Amino acid sequence: MQSKAPAPFRPEPAAVTLADLGGVRLAGVAAGIKPSGKPDVALLVADADVSCAGVFTRNAFAAAPVKLCRAHLHESGGRIRAVVINAGNANACTGERGERDAQRMAERVASLVGCAKEQVLVASTGVIGVPLPFDRVEHGIDLAFAELAREPAAARRFLDAIQTTDAYPKEAGERGEGAFNVAGVAKGAGMIEPNMATMIALAGCDLAIEPGDLAQAATTVAARTFNAVHVDSHTSTNDTLLLFATGTNKAAVSPSSWAAAFERVSHRLAWLIARDGEGATKVTTVDVVRAPSEAVARDIARRIAHSALVRTALYGNDPNWGRFVSAAGNSELEVDFSRLVCRLQGTVVFERGEPTAFDRAAASHAMVTDDVSLEIDLGAGNASARVLTSDLGYRYVEINAEYTT
Amino acid sequence: MQSKAPAPFRPEPAAVTLADLGGVRLAGVAAGIKPSGKPDVALLVADADVSCAGVFTRNAFAAAPVKLCRAHLHESGGRIRAVVINAGNANACTGERGERDAQRMAERVASLVGCAKEQVLVASTGVIGVPLPFDRVEHGIDLAFAELAREPAAARRFLDAIQTTDAYPKEAGERGEGAFNVAGVAKGAGMIEPNMATMIALAGCDLAIEPGDLAQAATTVAARTFNAVHVDSHTSTNDTLLLFATGTNKAAVSPSSWAAAFERVSHRLAWLIARDGEGATKVTTVDVVRAPSEAVARDIARRIAHSALVRTALYGNDPNWGRFVSAAGNSELEVDFSRLVCRLQGTVVFERGEPTAFDRAAASHAMVTDDVSLEIDLGAGNASARVLTSDLGYRYVEINAEYTT
Repeated sequence: MQSKAPAPFRPEPAAVTLADLGGVRLAGVAAGIKPSGKPDVALLVADADVSCAGVFTRNAFAAAPVKLCRAHLHESGGRIRAVVINAGNANACTGERGERDAQRMAERVASLVGCAKEQVLVASTGVIGVPLPFDRVEHGIDLAFAELAREPAAARRFLDAIQTTDAYPKEAGERGEGAFNVAGVAKGAGMIEPNMATMIALAGCDLAIEPGDLAQAATTVAARTFNAVHVDSHTSTNDTLLLFATGTNKAAVSPSSWAAAFERVSHRLAWLIARDGEGATKVTTVDVVRAPSEAVARDIARRIAHSALVRTALYGNDPNWGRFVSAAGNSELEVDFSRLVCRLQGTVVFERGEPTAFDRAAASHAMVTDDVSLEIDLGAGNASARVLTSDLGYRYVEINAEYTT
Repeated sequence: MQSKAPAPFRPEPAAVTLADLGGVRLAGVAAGIKPSGKPDVALLVADADVSCAGVFTRNAFAAAPVKLCRAHLHESGGRIRAVVINAGNANACTGERGERDAQRMAERVASLVGCAKEQVLVASTGVIGVPLPFDRVEHGIDLAFAELAREPAAARRFLDAIQTTDAYPKEAGERGEGAFNVAGVAKGAGMIEPNMATMIALAGCDLAIEPGDLAQAATTVAARTFNAVHVDSHTSTNDTLLLFATGTNKAAVSPSSWAAAFERVSHRLAWLIARDGEGATKVTTVDVVRAPSEAVARDIARRIAHSALVRTALYGNDPNWGRFVSAAGNSELEVDFSRLVCRLQGTVVFERGEPTAFDRAAASHAMVTDDVSLEIDLGAGNASARVLTSDLGYRYVEINAEYTT
């Protein structure tokens, strides 16, 4: 069957990378934290203070590096000098020792860079509940600092070092109108022994942007992109999004312009994460439109994206209007569904309370694609919401049930 | 692997069945609604008015028979004479024709029984979005009426006729202290082409109970039993629970006593439904205890039971504390998790923010059972909540992705 053995998905390289932002040096090295020996320490060091803002997991068991980032962004006023990321160990559920280890990572970088430790941010991804092998991490930091460079190859090494079980590196970038660059990298949502999908994303812009403006943009961007990806209905202990602005480009660009560029780059990264959902064969973009409020639109979009019944139907290329519509009907909000129209890849499959006489074979065939569009039109307002989800197939079960600890 | 080819689960027959309640006659016949030719029309007719109460799906796309039941219970004051159930077609998403068909089913039964149509309740399960084959349904009603009987074999035929993809018939019953009988039957949560898990349950008692008291009990019983089963995070268009009391037994029994018996019978039926979750190899009972409020306990229990990551770990016999605890940590309510203790089959696997040094092999082995206990102890109050969930394995994907429409 077409859905069972899809060609491996390989994205195009990004047109603009972190190396194009200027004002930062990058490195990625193998420090032996990953048992595989693959690169696992990534370091970004800015030539001068750069504005930075973050959005982090809301999970109550937030990892030590997440707590550190929150504190350091506050203490530095959002003006940082370096970001260090390790893969292979998430430093989560590691108690006080974990908090000390995260601090020590920041201190090590700060002493090498010659900045305050509050100007260093830390992110970690990998196994949870196991203390960091700190000697290796420290060695990796020293090694990375020695290899910092400005060229595209360094940006690529940085990207490689933040991967865990990712099937492909995730990067996105564009040259915005008004001549500025935005570029980003991400890892996720591959599962990590023993546990969780961690999303780490870092995106930068070469414009000069105040930390407060960046923080405002980060919240909006996260809500519309990364927080609208549903692969597991499960946010991890380590989810981290960092936006930064180097200020090397003195062009005057409107805030709406650079914010939109950050959103496009983040949307592409989020799409790449959803496409790489474990065992996923496609991304489905769930749009709820003409809703009475954004809360209603978001609730319905999330219920559809979360439903295991919907996600198995997407995997099976099954134009299963009953699952789509009844997932919407599970909303506990006050919603008038009487004018609901459901469109699958543009074809109306349900309206006026009943399925239409659509061509099932054609509708199923249209679902064999990298990006399925599923639209719920409530005909009851102007609000909308978009959520991306991956399909749920055998590989998901295999990855999550077989690779036990 | 032990989890992959479990022995087919077959429950013990119930000690007390609907036939033991007295005052009702039962039938189950094959009317040709199911393509398989298996029994598909079930009829229960009471000798005199019986008290009845119902709890129904909250899905906005509630099927025509659900709307009919709500109206008839209201109009009859909860004093009914008959229940007719058909399998093979859910009469859902069938528009005005569907509503007329449900009415005609009630009218047909009423004319045979000689009662008001408001005293007849209707439930349907099966394919959705397809009009009822009304001639067959009508013929089935006539056939069933002619075969009504009081013996256990009739109760068994009734039970057989409400099944869809159930792997085994679901019944439960007990002789309560104070000498009264409670018995029930259920179907679910097997998937039905093209679509949804419908849960239909009917439980009766031989005591005389006022409709209002029964309605109050039904709400509590549903919340604690059927509504605490999470197989798909998806309530169907047709979910129906009916409780009735025949009044043939004049014993004086306290309301708390009969309500507890209804709850035990319903809990057993709910457990049997969870155990029959598609592809399920076990039931997991998620208990959240010592919570500051029932809302918090319920939210956390549901997040754990809904998590695909948790459910695949249960399938793989993986004592994956990280998934259990982080699913709890996803709660958006204000919760203090600092004293959280997680117990898996009685073994503490996580406390004080870190995993314990438990024996993983032994913990995994202890998960090879029909009923896994997963407890989250918040150490922060007296409230608790219990949710049942099934595990998520390959068969779930197979059933839900392959059997396309």
